[in-house]
Amino acid sequence: MKKKLFELPSPEKHIAFSPDKLIRTPIRKTLFALLALFTLLFASQLHAEPRYQWRLAMSWPEGTPMLHNAAKRFAENVVKMSGGRMQIIVDAPGRHKAPLGIFDFVRTGAYEMGHTASYYYKGKDPATTFFTTTPFGLTPTEMNAWYYYGGGLELLHKVYARHNIVAFPAGNTHIQMGGWFRNEINSLDDLKGLKMRIPGHAGEVVERVGMKPVSVPPGELYTALERRTIDAVEWVGPANDEKMGFQKIAPYYYTGWHEPGAELHLFINKKKFYALPDDLQTIIALAAKEASFDMLSESFYRNALAWESMRKEHGINIRTFPDDVLDAFKQSNEELLLQAAGRSTLAQEVIQSQQAFLAKARKWSQITEHNYLELR
Amino acid sequence: MKKKLFELPSPEKHIAFSPDKLIRTPIRKTLFALLALFTLLFASQLHAEPRYQWRLAMSWPEGTPMLHNAAKRFAENVVKMSGGRMQIIVDAPGRHKAPLGIFDFVRTGAYEMGHTASYYYKGKDPATTFFTTTPFGLTPTEMNAWYYYGGGLELLHKVYARHNIVAFPAGNTHIQMGGWFRNEINSLDDLKGLKMRIPGHAGEVVERVGMKPVSVPPGELYTALERRTIDAVEWVGPANDEKMGFQKIAPYYYTGWHEPGAELHLFINKKKFYALPDDLQTIIALAAKEASFDMLSESFYRNALAWESMRKEHGINIRTFPDDVLDAFKQSNEELLLQAAGRSTLAQEVIQSQQAFLAKARKWSQITEHNYLELR
Repeated sequence: MKKKLFELPSPEKHIAFSPDKLIRTPIRKTLFALLALFTLLFASQLHAEPRYQWRLAMSWPEGTPMLHNAAKRFAENVVKMSGGRMQIIVDAPGRHKAPLGIFDFVRTGAYEMGHTASYYYKGKDPATTFFTTTPFGLTPTEMNAWYYYGGGLELLHKVYARHNIVAFPAGNTHIQMGGWFRNEINSLDDLKGLKMRIPGHAGEVVERVGMKPVSVPPGELYTALERRTIDAVEWVGPANDEKMGFQKIAPYYYTGWHEPGAELHLFINKKKFYALPDDLQTIIALAAKEASFDMLSESFYRNALAWESMRKEHGINIRTFPDDVLDAFKQSNEELLLQAAGRSTLAQEVIQSQQAFLAKARKWSQITEHNYLELR
Repeated sequence: MKKKLFELPSPEKHIAFSPDKLIRTPIRKTLFALLALFTLLFASQLHAEPRYQWRLAMSWPEGTPMLHNAAKRFAENVVKMSGGRMQIIVDAPGRHKAPLGIFDFVRTGAYEMGHTASYYYKGKDPATTFFTTTPFGLTPTEMNAWYYYGGGLELLHKVYARHNIVAFPAGNTHIQMGGWFRNEINSLDDLKGLKMRIPGHAGEVVERVGMKPVSVPPGELYTALERRTIDAVEWVGPANDEKMGFQKIAPYYYTGWHEPGAELHLFINKKKFYALPDDLQTIIALAAKEASFDMLSESFYRNALAWESMRKEHGINIRTFPDDVLDAFKQSNEELLLQAAGRSTLAQEVIQSQQAFLAKARKWSQITEHNYLELR
């Protein structure tokens, strides 16, 4: 519809058939005044209907299930809802070469937008970490309740405003699995010295209890696990893990504790966002929220289906870490949260806000989700 | 922004300063041709930017927590995202007088839109029932995975297309509680003859195991329970139940089994919806989806907070029905689902689609939500 507006012949074209040749003063003056007026009216309308050609850099390679889809559907929905006034080109790391450089791309305005996860940017600002996920923290439903009603979104805006970025939650992977282990873990002792691919805050948690978190590029993970260069690996969940093939070489699949619903984020250059007309701002905010919601549904759906097929085709032993391991992880996590809070007032504010809500949410999830899944 | 477009002086006003008096033929002809051209251009733009003044009838009284909010925020978001091109007036039952008449309002076009719950219209079409909820069925996260990835939305459209309605999921109450009981339920025998306010399909389930479901207007429920006209009542969850005051007179609060995430719906008159430009159709669809998502977050948040304050102020005993009661409910529910499937091919299709997804979702929820809440 908006497209039609721009396909109309421009006023200049019509003026081009040379009114001068036909008209004399003072009629010419009047006519010119009229033409000027109409041109002004058109110009003000054109001003009121700018086109935006924006670019979005995402952290995910083309074709990554869920992650890539969330960024693409966000862009498509903005285009549709704006009637084509805003176009968004989505670039994958294959083009921009910096999967973890989205923060800087958007901050500097090299890209107007980015799709990434807040916790990749701990080095830029420690307060960014827990907007994605906290071990033993909020489930996706609880996380959304916190973001939209418990003050989370305001804190997110407060933290990112300092970096010239407007951030929105824009995708959730649902509860992630605890990873693949070649050997069964029966006690805390079995973890000592174990080499595991587990990045970020969770990597620090396991390191404190004697494990050795290691960094291995995704393309080399299968071989590393097969050749026992590493003993364990956590990736995402069945839909993503199945493609990596871990189920063929590691018989134990552990339930999750460290990423109970990792939230991804849309970053937008702050100045450019606030220069947009109000309707486009709302369209972007809602399309991001829809992407967050939709990716959670897609993650649940694909993982449920992949888990069914994986179970049928492979002898997978599903395990939950024993109590002494979990207790050690919990204690280590709490110590690290205290450290993080000590390093940054804003990080402290985020952690305290989440923990305060968790104290209430925990009891409600227990008598709803937990009880219901128990009795169903 | 769109508003500005309409605030521009109309071309007619400017023509009104009488070019005739100043101009002679053939210049007059040329000028008229020019004016006609500009007027045409403006007119085509006005045609491309119609305003829609739509009305929405909701089932919920003004001020009902969550329910009312979801309808209002849907309407506000459409207004904002359309730049004011579409305005939506939301009418509560105080005005339209028919809380359960939304289906007919929208089908006939008396209202362009409605906000209600599909399962209220079982009498119109048995296939409408399970789009809201099924006892022992899908949780909110599972329900959304089914709607958006498991074919649920397509089935919803298929069922409602026959009634000249386009329906979208547009609000979720999260897992509802099983209700308030004056006496503890220790076995199936304790249920025999018990009078309980529990409507719809769930009412039929409990009736088959010997209870007496009764219908009592909301305003009389508290007194009915206090005077033992009824023995039990299910309403929604802490945020709504607390306002009714049931916690003061019924000491046992049972966990839920019958409405694991009731989904509400936006109804739109089909002909009017498809007559809208594409961008407004997408805006409406996304605003509905956002309302569904947001209401789930709001419900979780408010219930978690209300449960905290309710527990502290009252001696509430939280209970889960004993196994023999749950087994009887389950069997009764399955028999009723079979009956419903026998009455309507479309109802059968909906039930089978949900049950097939539940078989996969059940296992995945067990190793994610259930396991995580167990170990957290």
